[in-house]
Order: sequence, then C-alpha cells, then structure tokens
Amino acid sequence: MKVAFVGLGSMGLPIAKNLVAAGHALTVYNRTEARAEPLVALGAKAAASPAAAAQRVDALVTMVSDDAALEAVLGGDEGALAALPRGAVHAAMSTISPALARRLAVEHQAAGVGYVAAPVFGRPDAAAAKKLWTVVAGRGADIERCRPLFDAVGQGVLVVGEEPAQANVVKIAGNFLLAAAIEALGEAFALVRKHGIAPQRFLEIVNGHVLRSPIYENYGKIIAESRWEPAGFTLANGLKDTRLALRTAEEVSVPMPLASLIHDHYVSAVARGWEGIDWAALARVCAADAGL
Amino acid sequence: MKVAFVGLGSMGLPIAKNLVAAGHALTVYNRTEARAEPLVALGAKAAASPAAAAQRVDALVTMVSDDAALEAVLGGDEGALAALPRGAVHAAMSTISPALARRLAVEHQAAGVGYVAAPVFGRPDAAAAKKLWTVVAGRGADIERCRPLFDAVGQGVLVVGEEPAQANVVKIAGNFLLAAAIEALGEAFALVRKHGIAPQRFLEIVNGHVLRSPIYENYGKIIAESRWEPAGFTLANGLKDTRLALRTAEEVSVPMPLASLIHDHYVSAVARGWEGIDWAALARVCAADAGL
Amino acid sequence: MKVAFVGLGSMGLPIAKNLVAAGHALTVYNRTEARAEPLVALGAKAAASPAAAAQRVDALVTMVSDDAALEAVLGGDEGALAALPRGAVHAAMSTISPALARRLAVEHQAAGVGYVAAPVFGRPDAAAAKKLWTVVAGRGADIERCRPLFDAVGQGVLVVGEEPAQANVVKIAGNFLLAAAIEALGEAFALVRKHGIAPQRFLEIVNGHVLRSPIYENYGKIIAESRWEPAGFTLANGLKDTRLALRTAEEVSVPMPLASLIHDHYVSAVARGWEGIDWAALARVCAADAGL
Amino acid sequence: MKVAFVGLGSMGLPIAKNLVAAGHALTVYNRTEARAEPLVALGAKAAASPAAAAQRVDALVTMVSDDAALEAVLGGDEGALAALPRGAVHAAMSTISPALARRLAVEHQAAGVGYVAAPVFGRPDAAAAKKLWTVVAGRGADIERCRPLFDAVGQGVLVVGEEPAQANVVKIAGNFLLAAAIEALGEAFALVRKHGIAPQRFLEIVNGHVLRSPIYENYGKIIAESRWEPAGFTLANGLKDTRLALRTAEEVSVPMPLASLIHDHYVSAVARGWEGIDWAALARVCAADAGL
Repeated sequence: MKVAFVGLGSMGLPIAKNLVAAGHALTVYNRTEARAEPLVALGAKAAASPAAAAQRVDALVTMVSDDAALEAVLGGDEGALAALPRGAVHAAMSTISPALARRLAVEHQAAGVGYVAAPVFGRPDAAAAKKLWTVVAGRGADIERCRPLFDAVGQGVLVVGEEPAQANVVKIAGNFLLAAAIEALGEAFALVRKHGIAPQRFLEIVNGHVLRSPIYENYGKIIAESRWEPAGFTLANGLKDTRLALRTAEEVSVPMPLASLIHDHYVSAVARGWEGIDWAALARVCAADAGL
Repeated sequence: MKVAFVGLGSMGLPIAKNLVAAGHALTVYNRTEARAEPLVALGAKAAASPAAAAQRVDALVTMVSDDAALEAVLGGDEGALAALPRGAVHAAMSTISPALARRLAVEHQAAGVGYVAAPVFGRPDAAAAKKLWTVVAGRGADIERCRPLFDAVGQGVLVVGEEPAQANVVKIAGNFLLAAAIEALGEAFALVRKHGIAPQRFLEIVNGHVLRSPIYENYGKIIAESRWEPAGFTLANGLKDTRLALRTAEEVSVPMPLASLIHDHYVSAVARGWEGIDWAALARVCAADAGL
Repeated sequence: MKVAFVGLGSMGLPIAKNLVAAGHALTVYNRTEARAEPLVALGAKAAASPAAAAQRVDALVTMVSDDAALEAVLGGDEGALAALPRGAVHAAMSTISPALARRLAVEHQAAGVGYVAAPVFGRPDAAAAKKLWTVVAGRGADIERCRPLFDAVGQGVLVVGEEPAQANVVKIAGNFLLAAAIEALGEAFALVRKHGIAPQRFLEIVNGHVLRSPIYENYGKIIAESRWEPAGFTLANGLKDTRLALRTAEEVSVPMPLASLIHDHYVSAVARGWEGIDWAALARVCAADAGL
Repeated sequence: MKVAFVGLGSMGLPIAKNLVAAGHALTVYNRTEARAEPLVALGAKAAASPAAAAQRVDALVTMVSDDAALEAVLGGDEGALAALPRGAVHAAMSTISPALARRLAVEHQAAGVGYVAAPVFGRPDAAAAKKLWTVVAGRGADIERCRPLFDAVGQGVLVVGEEPAQANVVKIAGNFLLAAAIEALGEAFALVRKHGIAPQRFLEIVNGHVLRSPIYENYGKIIAESRWEPAGFTLANGLKDTRLALRTAEEVSVPMPLASLIHDHYVSAVARGWEGIDWAALARVCAADAGL
C-alpha cells in the first residue's frame, strides 16, 4: 500500500521500519527531520510536511505523542487531513483522548476519509520485534483496509467495536492497569525490603507462582534493579496517560482514586526531576517516601 | 506422622482432608465441634481442646482466622503449646502478623518446639485440589520435618529464609498485590462500562494479551459477572489482611497509600453490609461510587 | 464610572446591583437576556453583545463561570476586548486558571487595556450584603482605577502582587482550603454520628472553642442539617474549582493528594446526581460511604 | 481535694502545677522520677508507684501517652485502680481509644470508683496558662466531683454525655480536624510557593479574612516559618492520634480517606526521621513531595 507515516518517535520508528520491510511504500514525516534518515536509507521517502506526506496515499498512519500533536498533524493548511484523497483511511495509533477521537471521526467522515483508532500495547522492543497488540475500533470496512498494515507491525488485531473512541478507552484503561501494577509493586517492595527480604525473591514467589504475569515479571525486575534507564516509556508519558485516564473517567463521572494516587506520585516524581526515566520509577517514589 | 490439626474453616478442612488422605494420623480440634465430623468419618480423631489434640504428636498444624485466634489456641492451660512434646514442630499456616510470629518463635524455642511459619496462597478450591503454594520460613531442620505435610497439601514449598516472620511478610505483601489488582480492575471496569464497553471484552483484550495473569482472569470474571457468592475468601477477611498489611508496614515506617485506599473501600463495603461476600466485591464499591 | 458588566449569575447579579447603587453607569450583558431585567429596572442599560457593552466604557467587569466562558466573552468579533477603548481597564472577577490569566494579561497589554485579576471570596448572600473580599493582582495604577468598583461591592481589597495570575492562584488555593474543611467535617461527622454523638454538639465543642472559624460554623451547620438546597455554590462548581486546583498544581509539579481525594468525591457526587446542590454535599458522599 | 496525679509529660506537668496552685493536695507519680521534682518543690508528694499514689485520695487524675500506658498505670498489683478507695473518682485526661474507655468504665464501676473521660484541647503553653478546654463525659455526679479540678486547669468544661467513651470520640475527631487543617495548609502552601507567592501573605488573606481561625493562624505561621521545634505536640503523637482515629472509625465502619492520607504522610515523616518534631511537619512532607 501507499502509506503516509507521521511520527517517528521511539514507537513510530520501529513500526515504520516494519511497514517498509513488509513492502509498503512509505512517505514519512517527522517534526525533527533527522529521525527520518534511517527510513530513507531503507527506501522510504521523506516529506516536508504532513500534507505533503498525505498526498495520493491509500492510508495515513500517525503515531504522535498526544492530542495536541495529533491535532497539529491533521489540521490547518499544512495539515494531513485536507491533503488525504477521498476514500483513504487514517489509522491513528497514538494514545489520545476519546473526546478527540470522537471529533476526528466526524471530521474524517465529512472529508470522505475513513478513521480507525488503533492504539497499541507494547514497548519499543516489542515494536521492533513485531510483537505489538493493536486495539482497533472503527467501521468494519475501514479496519479491513488497514489490516495489512496492522499485520505488518504486530502479533494481532483486537477489535473493540465500531466507534473509534472505544479503542482509546480500552487503551487508556489498559495503561491504567499497568501503572496500577507498578504502584502496587512499588509499595510491596518497599514493605518487604524494610523487613529484610530481597524484592527479587518476593517476586519469584508471588509472581512466579501466583500472579504469573509477564508484565509483573518485567516491571518487577526493572524496579528490583532500579534500572530506570533507558526508558522504554518515559515517566512524563506515564503522567500524561494517567491524566488522560482521569479526564476520560471524569467525562462519564467515574471516580478513580487509584488513578489519582498514581497521578500524584507521578507529579511528585516530576518535582524530583525524574520525568525522563522509565515510568516504572513510580516505584522509586514509593521507596523514597519510605526513606529508602 | 502423628499430627494435631487446629482450625477447620473453609481452608483448614480441605487441607486436613489431604493430610489424612496422605496417610497422616490426625487429631483435630475446632471451636465449632461439628466441623470435625467429616474428618472423623475419614479416620481422624477429634479432641476436646487444643491441648488434648497436641499431646504426643510429632507436629501441630494450625489454620485459624487471625492473631487472636492463634494466641487463644496456643496459650493458657488448655493451650496447645504447653501440651506439645519437646522436639515437636508447629507449622503455623494462618495469615498472622510478623510481630506475633516473632514472639511465637521465641516462645516455641523456649519450649523446645520448632516453629515454622507456613502461610499459603490459594483459595478453598485450590486447597481441595492440592494446588496451594506454601510460603515457609524457619530453621532448615524444622522445615524439613514439615515437608511431608506441605507436600501432601500443595503443589510446592517456597522457602523465604530462616526467620519465621518473613514468610508472613511475604504472604501479607502478596495478598496486598491481589487486592490491588482487584481494586484496579474495579476502577477500570467502571470506566469502560460507562463508556459502553463490556468488561468481559476489555478483560479478554488486556489480560488475554498483555497482563496474561490467571489471577486477573479469575477475579476479572467474578467482577464482570458480579458473582460475589459463594465467597472463596470473604470481604471481612480481605479487610483483615489489608489492616495487617498497613500495620506490618507501619512497624517499619513504610507508607502504603494504595493499601490505605483499599482499606477504606473495604470499610465502606462493610458499612454497606457486604462483609460476607467475596473480597472481589471491592470492585462493587468502585462501581457503586460511579453510580453503577 | 462608565462600566460594562458581563455575567449576571448568582454572584454577578448582586455585584452589579451594588455597582449601580453606588452610582456607576452600567451597561450589562448576559447570555440569558432575562437576567438583565432587574438591573435595567434599576437604571442600567442592556447590551446585545459583550462588544456592544464594552464600547466607550472606563472599565469592564466580568463575572462568568469558567475559562471557556471568559474566553467567549472577550474573543472574536463580538468579543469585548476588541471593543474596549484604549486606556480602559478590565477587572476579571471569575475564578479562572492562572494560565488563562497570564495569556489575557499579555493580550490586554497589546490592546492598550489594563488587566486586573479580581476574584472574590464570599457566597451570594455576602455579595448582596457587600461583604465580599476581593483578592486583586495587577499593575498598581490599574488596581487604583478599579478601586471605586471594588469598594462598592465588598468589605475590602486584598492585594497580592503585580502579576494578575497570582490573584487566581490565591483564590484557587483558598477555595481548596474551604473544600478541605468540608471534607474534614464530612468525615468527622460520619465518625461521631456512628458513635451516637450529635454533629451539632460536636461542632459546638470543637469549632466553638478550638477552631473558632465562621467557615466551619457555616458549613458545619449546613452539613449537620443536610441543608443542601438552595445551593450557595453548586457542587458542579466545587468540582470545577477542584479540577482547577489540580491543574494549577500540576503546572508547577505540586502533588495535592487531598485535592485529588476531594476531586474523586465530587466526581462520585455527580455520578449520584448531586451536581446541582450545595458543594457542602461533599460531606454527603462521606456519609453515604459510611452507610449513613 | 486529695488528688493522685499520674503522668508528668509536657501536658501533665503544667496541669499538675495548676492543681497545686489551686490548693489541691497532690501525690504524683511518673515513670521517670526526676519529672516529679518541680512539683515536690511546690509542695506535692512523690509516690513510688501508681498504687502508692492512689491510696486514700478523693480523685485520681491521669495524663499518660496512650492506651498501653494507661492500662499499665491502672492494672496489676502496683496499679492504681485496686488502690483507690471506693467512692473515689478517676478523671482520665489522656487521648485514648473509646474501646479502652468503655472497658475502664465497667471495671471502675465494679470497683466502686467513678470514671470520667476528660481529654483536653490545647498545647503545653495553653496548659501552663490554664487555657485548656476539657471535654468530659461520665455520670453527672462524677463530673461534678471533678469540676473543681477541671476549673483549676482550663478555661471551661464541655460536657458530651453520660457515656465516657464519647468524650474520647469527640477528642479524636477534633484532633483529626486539626491534622486535616495542617495537611490542607501544607498542600496549599506548596502550591502558592511554587507560584511565587509568600505563604505568609496567602495566610493573611485567606485566614485573615475568610477562615478567621486561631488554629489556622497558629499552624500556618509554624509552617510558613518551618518552626518545627520545639514540638508543642510531637509528630509521633500526631501519628498515634491519627491511628486512633482510623481504628475508632473502623470500629463503626466509617471510611476516613483523609485520615488515611494523613496517616500515610505521618508514616513517611517518621521514615524521614521526623518523629520528634512538631506534628505540623505534616506540611513538610507536602513540601518535600513537591520538591521544595
């Protein structure tokens, strides 16, 4: 397929590489131009603006940092939406608010362009290994058109429903579960450490035989080893996603006190200067508050 | 082995049955006598007091509800500790405070009796199926003497160290991780439900492909189906264990705000009359607070 | 002075009446036109748009509900800012975000118009009785020009500094202290009630002799009597201001766990359908969670 | 009156001095004997045990640190209760649990001794200045017998009811309101400071004109000046009283999330080594968590 790809961050870059590797013809755009070089080396074209990238493609794929970034990519004269041909489809892979997804669905329909919300679960190493899970929502025909793209970048497509925003809700609620697991590990590790028990041994026992989750395994090890860098997903992004969870919840009047607690710990982590390290450093706040 | 077994509740009864089935000679005691009948039918003897049960045995196994119950079983003239022969060993399987475990370790040593802390992970159905995991701590020789008993009731023995209280810390911290997972699921489900997404589908996506934990699977289903009864582990017990986590943490000056949040939700659940249903009903508080 | 007044809600209306009573020449605008009638009856003129109201005045006073409302009043072709004469001054009395205040300060300066942030403490009855306290920040000369207006509507002017946003920070932090007092009363009342003590008697003892605050007195009585209506300040506004506190705090990386707790209780109150009653009903959530 | 006085800590000592100054004949006991010297210099007698102090007195006054200390004073062979003459009365001024108060009321009645719960509001300087407020509950006749004592040490007696435990509930709920005010000030100060506003100015505005409470004034100044020493009431005692609030609430199934938050902050303060400074240092945790 002819594909415009916008957003070559730590997730976007490996995804775009996999699309090229699968034989798709990519035109890429990134705010920081140099990030496009490795893709150009693989045969992709680089465009000077989102609009330039979006001309005459079958599909647009975006993987940018937040609501504001996606609006900037799509809107205005240099924006991609106006440049997309009627009949094209846009797969929006960023973790954005359901509210923006709802608005974009309407705007795309008015422009005769399909809109599929397609956020992914997985960190940069999973993206590189084609091990992402893509959570998608949108009209069936739009999803089918994007399927070759999703197949090229992950191990599976998980369809939520016809309303794009719902994929974003699932992604946001899912990320909240991950952050909650990190917070819980952070508090539990502080408890066992101050009772003289190695967190690694605690993890072996409780995750090894009871929880049995690769997520607890992965984050448990990062925390036990204080391996905060390099960040697979930055703490600043963790704060952003927690804020998103709280706003998505407030929109439908759902109190989420655990999300609030995580939010407050992330804010404290930023106050301590930790915004650039891995979001697992939520547990570092738990340790510091315990005098560790 | 000749074994005294005290505490035939929903966990103790299936464990005692498995000990009898493995060929151990049990003398059992339970405050409510009638609970002993099924075991007597299997060949166990019933005793009129903990002290009567403990005479001339190789080992004492206790599985009672809390600190106070264990102290009542062991102490005083009718108590089991004074009645145990020198050289016997006591495997204490209850979830009790590390503080009590420390005191008991000293008292048992003074009485010439071994003391092994041996709390278990698993609900009554796992106990019946010999699928428990036994977390143990104590002197190596004492643990070895108990091993035939542990082998008869579970799928494995996980040794923490030589200090009995540490097994209790691990059990308490582990139960906290489970309650934290339930709280997180409760909040996430409220969020997705009010956005029109079936919690079952959310669970399939996020646990099926990301968390991949049998614990999230099990509790997620209970919550999604509001299957609060019969209780595998009562909400009142969940509150008790959360209180235990907070006190065990306070003892070493570790703040656990997530444990506090869970505690407050459990207290609210009790105020609503839910103390007898499954502790997964923590999620019912989340739903009710969201107007569901 | 010739004054344009925009926003005739439960606070704006009595303030505008006091300005008229003090001899100022008011041109008023309100989205719902009928709200202007009592002022027209007192001699004010009604305008068809914020821009129409703002022409040829010495000062603009705004008292609208939130950031979006104030932006709508000021911006665009029908907006008040473009219509204000150079040299006029704008006293913005709404509780808005410091971020908006900062932007407005710049825009007003560019338009040659003074900008004074002037949020008030006090409920509608205090506004009617000229008992408001006006917290102001801005350039000294701008404040002085507004002083006759402030003197006409309250019992005093409290100057924070030269940067308008700071008055908004003080107002937001102040409102947080009030909400915190309500939450604390709500929890304390639930505690004493379930121990058989009348909250009124508790209030007499603790506020009568220890705290000695008219705020605790006022809200304590409202809560003790469940007098949620009529709302002096709605719960929906309480939620809005708590959200404002959290965002204002996040902007400078300050965790406010108590604000988060209040936020979550307000969200739960809205989920229960209580958004239109007095914000003191935060305490009603505390009572409900305790099974009262 | 002939009075036995037990507990000469920072509150007990000035109270005992005022009783001597009012002409009462005191026999005092304190675990650390040297604390009795200033009273002996004023004419009091020192006793070697609580029991020795309690012989042949009209009243016993106790002001000790917690439940365990009061039980140690009263119980056993060296205990004061067995030594008190029938017809004497015991005014228990410590902040203890309602559960203990209930048990003591029964035990005193069995011993023919009156029991009046009489916790006080006020810090050591207020005790020295006879400015305490005494919250009392018990049988009317018992209260009347103690009244000359209460009149000698405070500015007023506030009667809650006939059941002693209720005075303890009021004291515990009252202390919770004070800690809540400190937490709120701590968060508000962190917010305004990071926005460049002096906390003193914020306090002048909001407490000076809105809250108008001497408690906010006093603690606000302590916090604004980081004047954590000397401690009027130690942080360790603040933690103890918050724990008491949570247990008193749990007893009647009242969730108190704000008390939990305060508890967790106090635990963190102890982890940082701050247990000996003033309990207003709760606000220091807020500041530290904000990177201040």
